[in-house]
Amino acid sequence: MTFREKIIAIQRKQHSLVCIGLDSDPQLLPTHLRNSADGVLDFNRRIIEATQDLVCAYKPNLAFYEALGSRGWDILSKTLALIPPEIVTIGDAKRGDIGNSADQYAKALFEILHFDAVTINAYMGHDAVESFIRNPNRGVFILALTSNPGSKDFQRVKIGKQPLYEKLVRSSVKWNTHGNIGLVVGATHPKELKTIRALASTMPILIPGIGKQGGDLKSSIRFGCDRNGELAIVSSSRAILYASAGMDFADAARRETMKLRDEIRKYQSDFFESSR
Amino acid sequence: MTFREKIIAIQRKQHSLVCIGLDSDPQLLPTHLRNSADGVLDFNRRIIEATQDLVCAYKPNLAFYEALGSRGWDILSKTLALIPPEIVTIGDAKRGDIGNSADQYAKALFEILHFDAVTINAYMGHDAVESFIRNPNRGVFILALTSNPGSKDFQRVKIGKQPLYEKLVRSSVKWNTHGNIGLVVGATHPKELKTIRALASTMPILIPGIGKQGGDLKSSIRFGCDRNGELAIVSSSRAILYASAGMDFADAARRETMKLRDEIRKYQSDFFESSR
Repeated sequence: MTFREKIIAIQRKQHSLVCIGLDSDPQLLPTHLRNSADGVLDFNRRIIEATQDLVCAYKPNLAFYEALGSRGWDILSKTLALIPPEIVTIGDAKRGDIGNSADQYAKALFEILHFDAVTINAYMGHDAVESFIRNPNRGVFILALTSNPGSKDFQRVKIGKQPLYEKLVRSSVKWNTHGNIGLVVGATHPKELKTIRALASTMPILIPGIGKQGGDLKSSIRFGCDRNGELAIVSSSRAILYASAGMDFADAARRETMKLRDEIRKYQSDFFESSR
Repeated sequence: MTFREKIIAIQRKQHSLVCIGLDSDPQLLPTHLRNSADGVLDFNRRIIEATQDLVCAYKPNLAFYEALGSRGWDILSKTLALIPPEIVTIGDAKRGDIGNSADQYAKALFEILHFDAVTINAYMGHDAVESFIRNPNRGVFILALTSNPGSKDFQRVKIGKQPLYEKLVRSSVKWNTHGNIGLVVGATHPKELKTIRALASTMPILIPGIGKQGGDLKSSIRFGCDRNGELAIVSSSRAILYASAGMDFADAARRETMKLRDEIRKYQSDFFESSR
């Protein structure tokens, strides 16, 4: 099954476009698990158990695991082993390197950690993408227009009449010969998301930035989905992970995930005939 | 001692602008060390012992250590412990993330691995840089114009009259309030290096791409150094690490390093009065 087929299959099976970002920070865990590396693994296990019938993907951000030192890699590896195989795993690594260095990153992320997909940064150009797209069963999400304020510094600067992120999207479409490239577009840019979806009509789009960052969920679904009302992947981290700081954190995470899934389903049925 | 002071001090002490890239690939090691993770550590130890009086910096590329799985982090950590404290250590990580994720990467690289500096990718804008420059004793090298063919895809596109990399250099200069930002500029772009040095007259510039990638050493020194003939950091990996595949690999690495250091010193004395 190709990477793209896997996303579609799980989104249909779970009726969910929700991705949970496993940005598990020891300092933010419920009190009884706080400040311990084992606590992070216990926390992830409980979150995954409580939400695995409600999501299409989990997305650990590698930064949080690297910050745990040498144990971090093992905790990440053990976390991935807890995720049911039909659910998509996205390594939010934002790697961007070339040649044999990129090959080594691809090896680490796809062959050792067994992620289905990773986020990558294409500032270095096409040779920063090649190593990651050779296997159609593995995918990448290329950073296009990110949700943060700094996205104006370079991503939005104009190249002639088009902004840089648009050039990057057009290049990504051109490079997508194996059908396994996706894009990252922040929910804080609904108008631009519409333009990007029009340029990349069949690509999965990973959409962070709802919740605390102020992104707009309704527009993210309306403009981020393909014409079947699918292939948008809406990522939420803190609002789900830290919904409660008490012993009931997993139940609270489940409630938040269900709320997000259902709100998305409502918008899917509002805007897409096939979802009604 | 600030990061910038540390670079200047070691370049003067060793009379060397050479940085060795510790991109140690188990498949390329001398036969007797090949294909073993312990082999990588032994290899690094011998390389460091044989070259530590000839260099200003060592630059492990994190990709090669991540590809070793969970042992990779320990091998990297043990490798760093072998490097004399006055020599600059650069984590070639090319990280680029924001907010609390960037904080976690900075923690991993500066507080756990204790790198003096890291390479970063600023496509996401100023918030991708902030977390890494808070401590003036730690530095960053921002990817400006890289040595690979793909650098034309985005880095060289024109924003009005200036190429994107030039806008990025100007932004880096503006953000450099703690004096600890440097740049990465490939040796394959001598003309552009001259322009970049003029814009960033006091910044360290990390210059990869000599040797196999065809970069020009003479121009790299002429245009990459500051007006004192310093603060260019010339990185070489494969030509030094794999100078011999036999038992004499460390001696061969020493000879190659010495040759590079001396060639650089010749160009320094050709082009800079203070170096004569």
